[in-house]
Amino acid sequence: MSAGIAPLVLLPGEGLEVLDQTLLPREERRLRLDTVEGLCEAIRSLRVRGAPLLGLCGAAGMALAATERGTGEASLREAARELTATRPTAVDLGAAVRGALEAALAADAARRETLLWERAEGMLARQRAVDGALAANGAPLLRGAVLTHCNTGALATGGLGTALAVIVEAHRRGLVDRCYATETRPLLQGARLTAWELQRAGVPATLLADTAAASLVASGRVAAVITGADRIAANGDVANKVGTYGLALMAARHAIPFYVAAPMTTVDLACPDGAAIPIEFREAAEVGGFGETRWAPAGIEAYNPAFDVTPADLVTAIITERGVARPPYGVALEELAARP
Amino acid sequence: MSAGIAPLVLLPGEGLEVLDQTLLPREERRLRLDTVEGLCEAIRSLRVRGAPLLGLCGAAGMALAATERGTGEASLREAARELTATRPTAVDLGAAVRGALEAALAADAARRETLLWERAEGMLARQRAVDGALAANGAPLLRGAVLTHCNTGALATGGLGTALAVIVEAHRRGLVDRCYATETRPLLQGARLTAWELQRAGVPATLLADTAAASLVASGRVAAVITGADRIAANGDVANKVGTYGLALMAARHAIPFYVAAPMTTVDLACPDGAAIPIEFREAAEVGGFGETRWAPAGIEAYNPAFDVTPADLVTAIITERGVARPPYGVALEELAARP
Repeated sequence: MSAGIAPLVLLPGEGLEVLDQTLLPREERRLRLDTVEGLCEAIRSLRVRGAPLLGLCGAAGMALAATERGTGEASLREAARELTATRPTAVDLGAAVRGALEAALAADAARRETLLWERAEGMLARQRAVDGALAANGAPLLRGAVLTHCNTGALATGGLGTALAVIVEAHRRGLVDRCYATETRPLLQGARLTAWELQRAGVPATLLADTAAASLVASGRVAAVITGADRIAANGDVANKVGTYGLALMAARHAIPFYVAAPMTTVDLACPDGAAIPIEFREAAEVGGFGETRWAPAGIEAYNPAFDVTPADLVTAIITERGVARPPYGVALEELAARP
Repeated sequence: MSAGIAPLVLLPGEGLEVLDQTLLPREERRLRLDTVEGLCEAIRSLRVRGAPLLGLCGAAGMALAATERGTGEASLREAARELTATRPTAVDLGAAVRGALEAALAADAARRETLLWERAEGMLARQRAVDGALAANGAPLLRGAVLTHCNTGALATGGLGTALAVIVEAHRRGLVDRCYATETRPLLQGARLTAWELQRAGVPATLLADTAAASLVASGRVAAVITGADRIAANGDVANKVGTYGLALMAARHAIPFYVAAPMTTVDLACPDGAAIPIEFREAAEVGGFGETRWAPAGIEAYNPAFDVTPADLVTAIITERGVARPPYGVALEELAARP
């Protein structure tokens, strides 16, 4: 099922290998890391990114610390501090590091190195299993050509991906014959990463400016839209990469399905609806330019939310590793959450 | 009413001055042109662009030819060929050059130079008058903060602009207090040109990625959306810069008005509806990069329409220099077209 993209490879007792995502799609360079400091640099420089993948890096980093620096408590605590400090706001990273540290300290010093590597391997295997189940649940829903947004592939989760894994699996089954991908301004994850993953997976791919999506949907070229989610409220409102809401409006107008594919960890039953989801605003410099290049005049203000909220009434179905939820979501999501 | 931006200045009997739009917004450089060849280079290199402005350049170019090369028939015909060949698909350019040539040849050779300069001056004055009437008709419709797309200012028409002139006039009247402008991928006219024109006009301006528009409208920050039009069908369907249709869907969902501002020359009563409007597709290289910079992997296909069609049911009103049309557009546009 995998497209063969492994953004993180564990080499237990030795180190790890990461794909340098900052060089994509121009160059596919794998970095061998055998020091905690090297891994910290890779995280800080965004060579690895994506919340689930950063969680995996946290677990792997603690195993690497045991191999490189020994398993003394002071040494492990120092490594945990260094790893967490690389991206202080990355919740998955911090949680994985903390979990690994606590598990290690609860064991005999002699067992710690093996335990930490096994823990990282288990986490990677679970990520692949969840992504695989999600892809298998979603694939039968797709037909013909589909439109997606941002990057939701292996590069984002470290496993197989979410929405993009569904597309790749549906293509493998002969159900999907083309994937249209938005550029996804301002950070261009669609143009840089999704386009590359689709090429690697052998899925015929077409890129479009975000502005061209309504024209594409109106033209009848796509049979469905499918995206990931950052957070799903109890009523089915979906927070996801900014631009998602517009795509859902276009799908509704032209009566094609709008699917969301995300793991159950994304479903937040404590959050009643989209209005309760806090939206991160990012720095103005991301708008009106990219990287070192500026197009806009100096001093221009910017409106730059990282996410938007798609109201549940526009969402045809929510695809998870446990099954597919359909409206009314209040009931359907609770039912999925209650499954073993 | 003018923001003081003059992309084309006529210097009768001497030459002309154009603002080099390729250097905006980084640098505001005016080029003095006193040869037909110099003007041709400026057109070919997109230093001047925008259909109405190219029409003005065509008329000005023929006047320049008379001053530089004399008013003999062979010489004028050769200049007309050179000017038209710079942008063979630019309808306004070709029509203005042809009109000027025919008018000149119908007059005595001794009168031709004066006649051609007067013709160019008349055309520029008419452009300003049409844009001014359009701005005056539209301004009372706007309040608070508005959202616009692409560039529809003086840089596009050579006069005052269309939708952007309405916004600037509404700001001058104290009705509008902020303009949000989309970047407008793939050519980024919003980030490069509209942001600069708004700053020059003293209108508080905020730039956003095209993906952020639905979030902006949902947030309640804007009271209306207003764009230009490339062609308006008899039923009120509007072809305009790609991305317009998506904005109209967002406005409709959140019950704010979606206005179109365009001169009567844009209204094509012979065209029954949007389905009859041919859509230009542009080269794939515009998507997945900008200028010399590429973000997307090599070999990726692209879907790159220049325009999209907004169905008439999403258009609150069409603002022209003759008045404001409201649904049903079939009747309203015919009525405007019949006015003297």
